[in-house]
Amino acid sequence: MPATSQFGQLRVVLVASRNPLNIGAAARAMSNFGFERLRVVNPYEAAFREARSAVGASALLANAEEYKSVAEAVADCALVIGTTAVRHRELQHPLRRLEQGARLIRKRLASGPVALLFGSEKFGLSNESLSHCHWLLHIPTSEKNISMNLGQAVAVCLYELIRDAKGAGKPEKVKLAAAGEMERITSMLIDVLRASGYLDRRVVADSDERLRRLVRRLHVPARDVDVWLGILRQILWKVQSGGKSG
Amino acid sequence: MPATSQFGQLRVVLVASRNPLNIGAAARAMSNFGFERLRVVNPYEAAFREARSAVGASALLANAEEYKSVAEAVADCALVIGTTAVRHRELQHPLRRLEQGARLIRKRLASGPVALLFGSEKFGLSNESLSHCHWLLHIPTSEKNISMNLGQAVAVCLYELIRDAKGAGKPEKVKLAAAGEMERITSMLIDVLRASGYLDRRVVADSDERLRRLVRRLHVPARDVDVWLGILRQILWKVQSGGKSG
Repeated sequence: MPATSQFGQLRVVLVASRNPLNIGAAARAMSNFGFERLRVVNPYEAAFREARSAVGASALLANAEEYKSVAEAVADCALVIGTTAVRHRELQHPLRRLEQGARLIRKRLASGPVALLFGSEKFGLSNESLSHCHWLLHIPTSEKNISMNLGQAVAVCLYELIRDAKGAGKPEKVKLAAAGEMERITSMLIDVLRASGYLDRRVVADSDERLRRLVRRLHVPARDVDVWLGILRQILWKVQSGGKSG
Repeated sequence: MPATSQFGQLRVVLVASRNPLNIGAAARAMSNFGFERLRVVNPYEAAFREARSAVGASALLANAEEYKSVAEAVADCALVIGTTAVRHRELQHPLRRLEQGARLIRKRLASGPVALLFGSEKFGLSNESLSHCHWLLHIPTSEKNISMNLGQAVAVCLYELIRDAKGAGKPEKVKLAAAGEMERITSMLIDVLRASGYLDRRVVADSDERLRRLVRRLHVPARDVDVWLGILRQILWKVQSGGKSG
């Protein structure tokens, strides 16, 4: 989870967004990942009004700050990052992949406000907007389709900022059956196979060992042991009684 | 970039989706990150038709496969993963954070098809759908708002699958000015400050050294050296000529 104090320093800045759904989606992703400060620069007015008044619009959207220029929107930020789908060298800016750029942003967030700029759905960031940026960030999309939806791009960038491979910890391991339990299953399976005539059809000297290895490869969860033993017991009973009566 | 052969094994399965925009958004994110196989299970029919016929709908969406049940949609997959916002232990399934779960999915994609299930916008995956899953995946959202937009959730999950911290490589470093160039800038700055009377107002023995350190901390890019020298030269000329004429 984000350390609020640190991630509270990020300003997500939407420049010239035209689609209220995208403004709303950006706000929702911010809320999902624990970010709070949304700024909009020259949004298409009707879009911004509509996004703010939408059913379920968040406090985050209601508190969004509106600016007339990128310069004003990033004035309090020591680091300003632009996002781009373009990979041209002609960008005149250092270009970093999201994985690596996010690391740098996290470091800088510890010492002060950082602005992350997203351009309009259609044109991205203008050269004027880019000129306020220290460097640019790109999401590693497929060459065949580099243009992401604005709301999805915001979600992916913010996710990369809060993702934490170390914090992910160990998975909740399924507790596996102990060796003794596996051996009980194995024994009963051997009984079943013997009773069913299976072992007569495949006569090999080490059949028990083969079956034991077979069962060991199963990864039976501990809590399922009794169920499996019950099943085998039932089958064994059926096979043996069937054999007697048949 | 995804190795197509490997990522071609992923089936993104949308179960009971109701919103055409979300189906379209899921398809767009797949295209952005190089995935191709979209499957839908019992979509709200009108929504699926609308998504498919939307302007700019992709070939990926046109090729989406429709199924009547989760069982049929995942029949060819050796591993089936459900996504959930819920963190309950009562889920009866091992639960993994995205960062860690994606690692496991990548490994398994190398050997065969894997299904990644997303439930409906409103209810998520039903217990019946979950019963087809080997384990569940959750995106590490903030506790305050765990419910993500479907299209954004798909984008974030697919991004985590293709992200590659090692592949991100070194940033394009800005080539900085060489020491000799910095010294020329420093000298000219000292000339300017001397000519402007600045150094008379702050009489210290080591002023040159202080200024040199000051300039060194600027990290001037190599390609900007001439511009800076030009600027300083201009200022120096102005200060000196102004001093003569004034």
